[in-house]
Order: sequence, then structure tokens, then C-alpha cells
Amino acid sequence: MEKVENIKSELCLLGERAGQAAAKMALLDTNEKNEILLKMAMSLRESTGDILAANLLDVKAAKEKNAASAFIDRLTLTKDRVEDMAEGLESLVTLKDPVGEILDTWKGNQDIEISKVRVPIGVIGIIYEARPNVTADAAGICFKTGNAVILRGSGEAKASNKAVVEALTRAVNANKGPDFAIQLVEDTSREAAVQLMRLNQYIDLLIPRGGAELIKTVVRESTIPVIETGTGNCHIYVDASADPKIALDILINAKTQRPGVCNAAETLLVHKDIAKEFLPIACKALNEHNVEIRACPEAMKYLDTVKPDTAKTGAVKTATEEDFYTEFLDLIISTKIVDSIDEAIEHINRYGSKHSEAIITKNRASAKRFTNEIDAAVVYVNASTRFTDGGMFGFGAEIGISTQKMHARGPMGLPEMTTYKYIVQGEGQTR
Amino acid sequence: MEKVENIKSELCLLGERAGQAAAKMALLDTNEKNEILLKMAMSLRESTGDILAANLLDVKAAKEKNAASAFIDRLTLTKDRVEDMAEGLESLVTLKDPVGEILDTWKGNQDIEISKVRVPIGVIGIIYEARPNVTADAAGICFKTGNAVILRGSGEAKASNKAVVEALTRAVNANKGPDFAIQLVEDTSREAAVQLMRLNQYIDLLIPRGGAELIKTVVRESTIPVIETGTGNCHIYVDASADPKIALDILINAKTQRPGVCNAAETLLVHKDIAKEFLPIACKALNEHNVEIRACPEAMKYLDTVKPDTAKTGAVKTATEEDFYTEFLDLIISTKIVDSIDEAIEHINRYGSKHSEAIITKNRASAKRFTNEIDAAVVYVNASTRFTDGGMFGFGAEIGISTQKMHARGPMGLPEMTTYKYIVQGEGQTR
Repeated sequence: MEKVENIKSELCLLGERAGQAAAKMALLDTNEKNEILLKMAMSLRESTGDILAANLLDVKAAKEKNAASAFIDRLTLTKDRVEDMAEGLESLVTLKDPVGEILDTWKGNQDIEISKVRVPIGVIGIIYEARPNVTADAAGICFKTGNAVILRGSGEAKASNKAVVEALTRAVNANKGPDFAIQLVEDTSREAAVQLMRLNQYIDLLIPRGGAELIKTVVRESTIPVIETGTGNCHIYVDASADPKIALDILINAKTQRPGVCNAAETLLVHKDIAKEFLPIACKALNEHNVEIRACPEAMKYLDTVKPDTAKTGAVKTATEEDFYTEFLDLIISTKIVDSIDEAIEHINRYGSKHSEAIITKNRASAKRFTNEIDAAVVYVNASTRFTDGGMFGFGAEIGISTQKMHARGPMGLPEMTTYKYIVQGEGQTR
Repeated sequence: MEKVENIKSELCLLGERAGQAAAKMALLDTNEKNEILLKMAMSLRESTGDILAANLLDVKAAKEKNAASAFIDRLTLTKDRVEDMAEGLESLVTLKDPVGEILDTWKGNQDIEISKVRVPIGVIGIIYEARPNVTADAAGICFKTGNAVILRGSGEAKASNKAVVEALTRAVNANKGPDFAIQLVEDTSREAAVQLMRLNQYIDLLIPRGGAELIKTVVRESTIPVIETGTGNCHIYVDASADPKIALDILINAKTQRPGVCNAAETLLVHKDIAKEFLPIACKALNEHNVEIRACPEAMKYLDTVKPDTAKTGAVKTATEEDFYTEFLDLIISTKIVDSIDEAIEHINRYGSKHSEAIITKNRASAKRFTNEIDAAVVYVNASTRFTDGGMFGFGAEIGISTQKMHARGPMGLPEMTTYKYIVQGEGQTR
């Protein structure tokens, strides 16, 4: 218990300091923020040696624990990756500062003059997994939008994160930026994470960036408003009237270009009238890309006829109910034949995660029904789900992709890191 | 435990049905929704007898438990109050339907056509205290904005709420509205409330409407995104350059016009340079309105000189630290002399609840500093905090006043009951 009290008081101190920093951050003008961002980028470059040395410790420890190679890859920093982080900060300078934008003005009762003005959110908490580059990206986006940030990275990236935050903080302090604008939770215990999620007195918004388990825990434990990000059980629905060539291109792109990301496709739905034509060619192409197919019994009938190149192929298996709920994040796809667009919509709204959903069709009525009736952040007609991304949308920077409906939905750029306040000018009006 | 499982499965059924209703609600056009709203109003009028009879049971039970008279007053329905509820529904018909509004369109990467379109949130949960008129108001606002609603009123208003929901539902069903668009949680136990707060699988947004304790519980227990509403520890800051007459009018209005509401003032801050002039007249006027004053020692010096009319007066006492944190919701005000606008801003940002804050000043620089630096939903210059209200802002309808920063801040009208989705039109684009 004493330990928990210590953790709490440490975190409250962080929270208190973040609040003080946030008040000052909100008053910086765009030029001041941009100048410090450029200095932060320089400081990262100058600290490359220190950062890589710290990262080496993290990577060594991970290897000793026999971490998976994909994990090691995400954890590892190189000179080029540090340069990317620096360039990421510099690119924020070119983006429009949303803070101060007047969203609306009007006259209310008794002619009080009301303006709705964009302001920073305040203190933002970010909980993320072992990717040290997120440390600089998230800190930069929060800084540009006038927010103070509390970063809680994973224990496996502890030394790297500390080195990155130290480099950023040196630049902030040397250029008269607010103290404690960027803070790292150094205690990476589970208990500290849970206590952090309860700091609603100090933190205005919590953004978890990571896998489904992390996000579930945060949603369950947090008393701070949370934006859920990035769980994507995305579907490609090939309508009866689809152009098979377009359908195939989009399917292969959405499934195989980067299978480990949230906007990759996980399920292929095919209208029964096009199944005979489309499923065999889809199966062949998926096989060639080493994608394992988990098919409903009806689809199996068409797939049995395909003779995949066994040297390359992923297997073809029967899908379970569970498969349709699963975000594989891997070269696996589930597939199902549907009798109608109604069934496709119902399936997606039931099994999907409200992230990104695509219909391939030449029929305008089908496209309209799909875009109207699918409940997801982004609904596509004849384009790949892989476009759900701040960069593809032209946002310039992205803090994550929201799969919830409150505050922000879909790719979140700089404006999504702000809120608003109403400023009312009167001449003594009373009610 | 068995009981908890029963409660859970009952609530899951409600949630499942609400989800189905939400999918249909989202497809109703404005005319369809408006026609049903008018029928809902008629049905309330036709059911006045049933509603009043049910309400009588609730009121009788409350009186037997010696409930406070203010509580009984809020609980009691009359023919006029039912008529007000009906007129409230009718007034929604005249308001612009936010659903379907195209918020933005642009071309993204490879010329994909992106539109950002307003859509309903989905399923909204509302937890509220013993005010049966909220049942009709909240149901109407959710209906107009294409959302399904799950209402959880207080046990003390159980019979009244049931009668109101039955009247509304009769109208929805008779006019081909979606089944289960408006549902009431009939189990008003605490356990059922807690389980409701965990239904994040089914409910998209939870809005607690009630006192500070209710809101605290919801924030702590809910896994559903919550919009906190209506805790208002609001301040009037009288700057050195204030017009004393304007300051006095606003102070008396903000404190006494309706002391029990969230936008009433709870603390008066006075700049030291105007304290000698302003505090005695403020004290006299507050006394005349039976307001008890809790003053800092410095302010006491000026108040000692006042000889209030002891027949009418509220007392003058020394304020405690706790007083400055307190939302009195009563004819009590705390007061403090500050040395500077800096101290006023610091005090408000520390003790306030980020609801509504006012400066009274003739100095433009002070006004600008106050509006820039105060962190609150609505910041006033020379107007009463009592204007923080959907009606005063011209929103036509209001579901509550948000004191958090996520999704919506300040008075929430119809647009705040919607979210958006992106619709992307392509011609086969892949990454």
C-alpha cells in the first residue's frame, strides 16, 4: 500500500507540473512554438549518440528476453530513424496552428457577443508500446497544439524514451519554453500505469496507442476521457456489380501491403452473384501473396477448385465464428459469401470495429446504401481501406486513428488535439 | 452473483435492442422524425391523466420519506408541466436537423474524394435524478438527432418516468418509428446503474445529469465515454477598473436570480484597488437578498463597517479554504480580495470547475488576459454567468452543459449529439 501511495504522489506531482506547463503552453504564439520545435529537432540530431547508446541497452535487454524480431525491429533506433524523428518535428512547423482559430461568432440573448474559439486541450496523456519514435512524434504534436504531454512508454523502451525526452526537454528549456511541457513517466510498472489512468484531476485526455489488449485495459481502468485508437477489423465487400479487376487490386492492397497495421483488411465479403467468378481469382492472388484464407463453407465450394502453388501458398481453412471477430494483423483473411448487400452491412456492423470499411461496386444505389448504413469512421467506395491515415487524408500529422465516436473519429490531426471555449462580450447584461 | 448476472443480461438485451433501433433511427429523414415528434407531443397530452396518476404515487412515496420540499417540487408534475413537456417536443421540430450536414469535402492522396458528414452518435445513455420532465426532454433531443436512447432515471420518479416513456413509445410505434428507440431502465437499483455504466459494447455515450456526487460516480465507474455536465463553481471577478454599477448588477443577478443552478456565481473576487469602494455596497445588496457572505480576512475589514438590516440579512462569516472549492447552490457566496488580475486568474483556474467565469472591467487588456488565460467552457466580459445556457446561446434545445473538454464544451445543443463519418469515393485507388 505504501508503494501505491508513493506512486500516486509521484504522479500527482507530474500532473500538477503538467497543469502549470499547460497554462503557459496555451499562451505561446505560433512562432514561439515553431521556433522551439526546430530547436527540438536540432537537439535530437545532436543527441543521436546518446539516444542510440540508450537504445542499445533496451535492444540488448529485449534480445536477452528472446523478444520477437518484429518487436526488436520496432524498438530499434538507427541514425536514420533519429533523423526521421527530427524531420517529423520540422514538418510540424509547416502545418497550420489550429489554436486561436475563431470557429464561429454570433449574437445570443440580449445581443451578447459569443465567439467560439479553438484552444488547446490542456494536459494530454499518451500510453504506448515499445516504439521510441512515438515519443518524439507525440511530444511534437502536443507541443505544436499548445498542450502539455505526459508520456508513458513501455518498460522495454525505457532508456530510449528517457534519452529522447531529455533531448527534447533540453531544447524547450534552452529556448524559454515552459518547464515540464514534456514529461515521461519513469516508473513503467503496471501499477503506475493504472494510477496514471486515474489522474482525471490533472489529465484532460488519455490516448492509448497500441494493441487491442492495451486499449481494453485503458477503457476499463481510466477515469480520464479516452480516445480509443487503432483497432481495425476492416472489411472489403465485393458487391454483385463490382469490377473484378478493381476488386482484386483493392483486396490485395488492403490485405498484403502492410498486414500488421490497423487499416489492413481482415475479412472479404463476396456477393453470391459474383462469387463464382471472383473467389477463385481472389484465392489465387491471395495464395501468391502467402495469405492464408479462412472461408465460410459456401465459399469453400469455390475455393476447392483452385489449385494453389503449394510452394508459396497460405492454406485454405474453414472459418470459425471467432475468425470473423479477429483482427489478424497478419497474412490471414477470413471470407464469407453473402446473399445481399443487407447481409454484408449487417455482418460488418456486427463484427467490425467501426474503423474502415469498403464496398467495391459499379452500382450507385449499393454504394449509397453502404455509405449510409455502415457505422464506421471511414467508409470507402472503390478504394482501399489503407487510405485511412492522416498522411493520405492530407492532415500532415497524425496522433492516431480514433475508432470511437466521441470528440474525434478516424485519423486525428492537429485540430483534433484542441477543444474550444466560448468567449462572451457583454455590456453589463443580466437575466 | 446470480442477481448481478440477471441484471447484466437484462441490460445487454436493452443494449442490443437499442443498437438495432439506432441503425434504423440513423436512416430516418428529417420529416419522418419531425412527424413522430409531433405525435409524441400529442401522445403526452392525451396521456396526461395516466402520467399525473403515476406521478402522484411517486410524490406520495417521497413525502412519506420526508423528502425535502425542493426535491418534491422537482419531482411533481402538473397539467402545465406535462403541457411544457409536449411543447418542448414540438419546439424541436422547428430546429435544424444536424444529421446529414456535409462538414467538409476535399481531395486526399491520389484524388480520393473525402467528405466529412454528420451522423448520429448511435446509442446514448442518460442517467438523471428525480426530474420526470428530463425523460421527455432527453428522449426528444435524442430522437431529433437520430439517436436511440436508454434512460435511467431515479428510483423516486420510477412510476412517472414509466408513464412518460409509455406515452412516447406509443407514438413512435403507432407511426412506424423504430422499436426500442426510447427505452427506460426499470431496475433503478445502484447495481443496475453500475452495470449500465459498463455497457460500452452497446452504448456510445453516457451523459449524467445531476449533482456532483452522481457525476463523480459515473466518471469513476463508466467504461463508456462520459460527458460530465453541470458542476459549476463560477466566479465573478471585479477588476480594478470595473464599473461598480455593472459589477453590482451582474453579481446580484449571477448569485440570486436562481441560486440552485450550475451557472450561478459561487465566489466574488475583488481587486484590492476597488475593494474599499465596492465591497460595502456589494455586501449591502447581497444582504438585502438574504445572501450569506463568507469572506477572506482581508475582505472582512471592509465588511465589518457595514451595518446590514438584521431583519433580512444573511450572516457575514470568515471563509475557509473549503468554501472556495464549494458549489453552494444556495444563497451563500464566498469572497476574496486579490492583489492583481494574475491572482484572480490563478485562483479561478485552481478552484473553479471550468464552467463559466466572468470579469467585470473597463480595461481591454485585462479583459483579453482574462479570456485568454481562464480555462473554462464560457468566459464572460461584463455579462452574467447566468447566460451559459442553450436557450440564451440560441441553441433552441440543450441536453446539458459540458464541463469537460472532450467532444463538447459548454451548452450542448443538437449538433453536439452527433458525430461524423468520412465517406471516401474512389475509382480503384490503392496504396
